[in-house]
Amino acid sequence: MAARITLLTDFGTVDGYAAVVKGVIAAISPATIIEDATHDIAPGDVAVAAFTLARYWHLYPPGTTHLVVVDPGVGSRRRALAAAADGRRFVAPDNGVLTRVFDHSTSLDIVSIENDRLLGRDVSATFHGRDIFAPAAAHLALGIDLQELGPAISDPVRLDVPAPERQRGRIGGSVVAIDRFGNLITNVPGEWVRESTGIYVDGRDVGPLRRTYADVAPGEVLALVGSTGALEVSVRDGSAAVSLAVGVGADRKSVV
Amino acid sequence: MAARITLLTDFGTVDGYAAVVKGVIAAISPATIIEDATHDIAPGDVAVAAFTLARYWHLYPPGTTHLVVVDPGVGSRRRALAAAADGRRFVAPDNGVLTRVFDHSTSLDIVSIENDRLLGRDVSATFHGRDIFAPAAAHLALGIDLQELGPAISDPVRLDVPAPERQRGRIGGSVVAIDRFGNLITNVPGEWVRESTGIYVDGRDVGPLRRTYADVAPGEVLALVGSTGALEVSVRDGSAAVSLAVGVGADRKSVV
Amino acid sequence: MAARITLLTDFGTVDGYAAVVKGVIAAISPATIIEDATHDIAPGDVAVAAFTLARYWHLYPPGTTHLVVVDPGVGSRRRALAAAADGRRFVAPDNGVLTRVFDHSTSLDIVSIENDRLLGRDVSATFHGRDIFAPAAAHLALGIDLQELGPAISDPVRLDVPAPERQRGRIGGSVVAIDRFGNLITNVPGEWVRESTGIYVDGRDVGPLRRTYADVAPGEVLALVGSTGALEVSVRDGSAAVSLAVGVGADRKSVV
Repeated sequence: MAARITLLTDFGTVDGYAAVVKGVIAAISPATIIEDATHDIAPGDVAVAAFTLARYWHLYPPGTTHLVVVDPGVGSRRRALAAAADGRRFVAPDNGVLTRVFDHSTSLDIVSIENDRLLGRDVSATFHGRDIFAPAAAHLALGIDLQELGPAISDPVRLDVPAPERQRGRIGGSVVAIDRFGNLITNVPGEWVRESTGIYVDGRDVGPLRRTYADVAPGEVLALVGSTGALEVSVRDGSAAVSLAVGVGADRKSVV
Repeated sequence: MAARITLLTDFGTVDGYAAVVKGVIAAISPATIIEDATHDIAPGDVAVAAFTLARYWHLYPPGTTHLVVVDPGVGSRRRALAAAADGRRFVAPDNGVLTRVFDHSTSLDIVSIENDRLLGRDVSATFHGRDIFAPAAAHLALGIDLQELGPAISDPVRLDVPAPERQRGRIGGSVVAIDRFGNLITNVPGEWVRESTGIYVDGRDVGPLRRTYADVAPGEVLALVGSTGALEVSVRDGSAAVSLAVGVGADRKSVV
Repeated sequence: MAARITLLTDFGTVDGYAAVVKGVIAAISPATIIEDATHDIAPGDVAVAAFTLARYWHLYPPGTTHLVVVDPGVGSRRRALAAAADGRRFVAPDNGVLTRVFDHSTSLDIVSIENDRLLGRDVSATFHGRDIFAPAAAHLALGIDLQELGPAISDPVRLDVPAPERQRGRIGGSVVAIDRFGNLITNVPGEWVRESTGIYVDGRDVGPLRRTYADVAPGEVLALVGSTGALEVSVRDGSAAVSLAVGVGADRKSVV
C-alpha cells in the first residue's frame, strides 16, 4: 500500500504553515506520500475550496485521504469531520467544504472527530490544521477505521450550491468558478446545451457551442463543454473573465 | 526502482488542475513519486517553458519522466509527443516545448502518442493534460517501452531559438530569460566572454566580467557567467531587469 | 527508513530553480522523499526565512533533513553549514538563517561543509543551492555522519533576534512576522499576557486577550495567543496588518 494524503488549504505558500501540517503527518506516518493540491484558496473561501476539491478527489485511487483546511471558523464550536466516500477518505472542518463530495458519491460515512487520544496533546484555538486535521488524516493513512476517530453523524453543514434551471426551452445557469485562464465555468450540464443554437452570458451572445479553443480565431469568445462536462465560456488565447467583465455569482446568467 | 515524474505546467496553483493530473498518475501508478517543477509558467508561454525545462531535466536521474503541459493548442490537430533523451523520458504537446531537449541530448527517440488503449476512455477537447499526457507519463513510469505509446516520428515542431553571434571580435546575443531575482540571462556562452574587456546591455556598459555578486557593492550592476554557463547581467541585492529596464527579446543586444 | 528532505528557499516557483535542487537530490539519493516547505521567501530575506523554519522543523520526525537556501552572499567567503539539532539535520548558508534552531534545540552539532569529494564537480559562484547544499543534504539523507561533510565549528553567524521586555509591570515586544492572513505575530510569550487587562499595538488598544477569532464579531480586531504560543493580533475574517497599518519592525511596540 502506498497511502497518500493530498492537501487543499488557504494557507498560502509563504509562511510555512503547509510545512507544519506536512511535518505533523510525517511524524505520525512517515511512509505516507504527501501531495500539494493547492494552498492558494483565497483565505476563508469555502465555496471555491469545495469546487476545487470536486475537480480531483475522485481521480485519486481508493485509499487516498484528502485533507482540506479552509477553516474561517477555527476555534468556534464547529465540528471537525472525517468522511469516507467511494473509497477515498476526507478530513475537513464542518463548514460545507465537503458538500460536493457528499452530493456526488454513492457511498458515504461521516464522523465527528472527537477521539482526543489520536490528536495533538494541546489543541490550540487557532490552528486545527496542525492539531486536529493533520493527525486525523495521518491516522487514516496509517489504516485506522473511520469510526475510531469519533461518532457517526448525519447532519453535516452543506453549502447552498446554485442549481441550473430548465424551463420552457430556456436554460438558466450561473458562473460558479473562474480559473487561471479566465475561463467562466458554469453549472449548466454539457448535455443540456448540445443542441443549443444560442448561448448568452450576462446578456451577451457568445455564439453556438464549439468543440475546442482552436475552433475560433485568437481573441474570440466561445462556448464549449469543458473538461468537467459543464458549459464553459472562454476566449482563445485570452481571458473571458476580462473580456466579458464577468465574475462568479448567481446573478450572472448563462442563458441558452 | 523509484520511478519519478516531474510536472511543468502553466496551470497555476489555484484551481486544482495540477491535482487532477497528479490524481490520474497516482491511479495508474501509485508508487510513482510526483514532483512539482513549476505550475507558474505564464499561460501558453511555450518558449519560457522550454527554457525552464532545460534548467533541470538532465539533473534528474535516468528513468525520470518529465511531464510538460503548456498547451495553448489543446484540441487542435497538434500531436501529443513522448520522447526518450539521454535516459530520461518526456511527455508533452508537439508545440516546440521540447526543442531545447532535442538540441542538447546525444540520444533521442520521439513517438506520437496514439495508443488509445493506454489513455483515458473519453478524451476531452480541452484538457489533454488529464486525458492524454498524464496517462502516458504514468505508463512510462510503470516501465512500458516508449514505442508502445505510438509510432516513431522525426519531424517534431521546433521553436526558433535565438542564436548568439560572433563576428570580427564583436559578440552579439539576446536576453532569453529573466528570473525571479531580476537576473538577465543571455544566450551568450560564458567561454566566449572570459576575455571580454567591456560588456554592454542595450547600449549600457555593465563593466568587465565578474565572478560573483559579492564582487561589487550592493545595488551595483555586474556581468558574470551564471549557473548554466551563460552570460548573465545582475544587480547585487537588486534586480537588473528593473534597474536596466530590460525585458526578454531578440532586439536586446548584449554586445561584448 | 524513509529519509526526507524539506526545502525552504527564496527561489520562487517560476524559474525551475527548485526543480534543479530536487533533481540533484534525486540523482544522489533516489528514494528520498522531497517536500516543499516554501520557495516564496522574499529574495534574500534571511530573517523571515529563519522565522518560517522555526515554525516547522521540530514537527518533522527525527532523521529529517531541512535544506535552507536563502543565500544573498552566494559566492562570497561565507561558509556553508550542516548541523544536527534534536535529531534533525540542517544544511544552509552561514548567514544566520539557522539562528532560531540554534537557540531552541537541546543538542547541537555544526560543521563547515568542505568535503569536495561529496559535492558537485564544478562549484559555481552563483548557485550553491545546486552545487553545495543539495548534494550535502542528499548525502545526509543517505545516512552519512555529519562529520563527513567537514570540520566542526562553534561560531556560526547569528541573527540579532529582537527580545521582548518586561519591566515594572509593563511588557514591550515587537511584531516579528505577518502571515498571509494579516495576523501580526509578536515575540511576546503567551504566558506573559495571560493576565493582561489591556493590550496595545502601535499605541492602539486591541482589547483584552481572547481565546480565538470567533470571540469577536467579523471585522473586529483582537489579541490572542497564537499557534506558536506567542501573542498575536488579528482581525476576524480580515487582516490586522491592513486594518492597523502595522508592519514588521522593532519599533512597533506591543505594549501590555
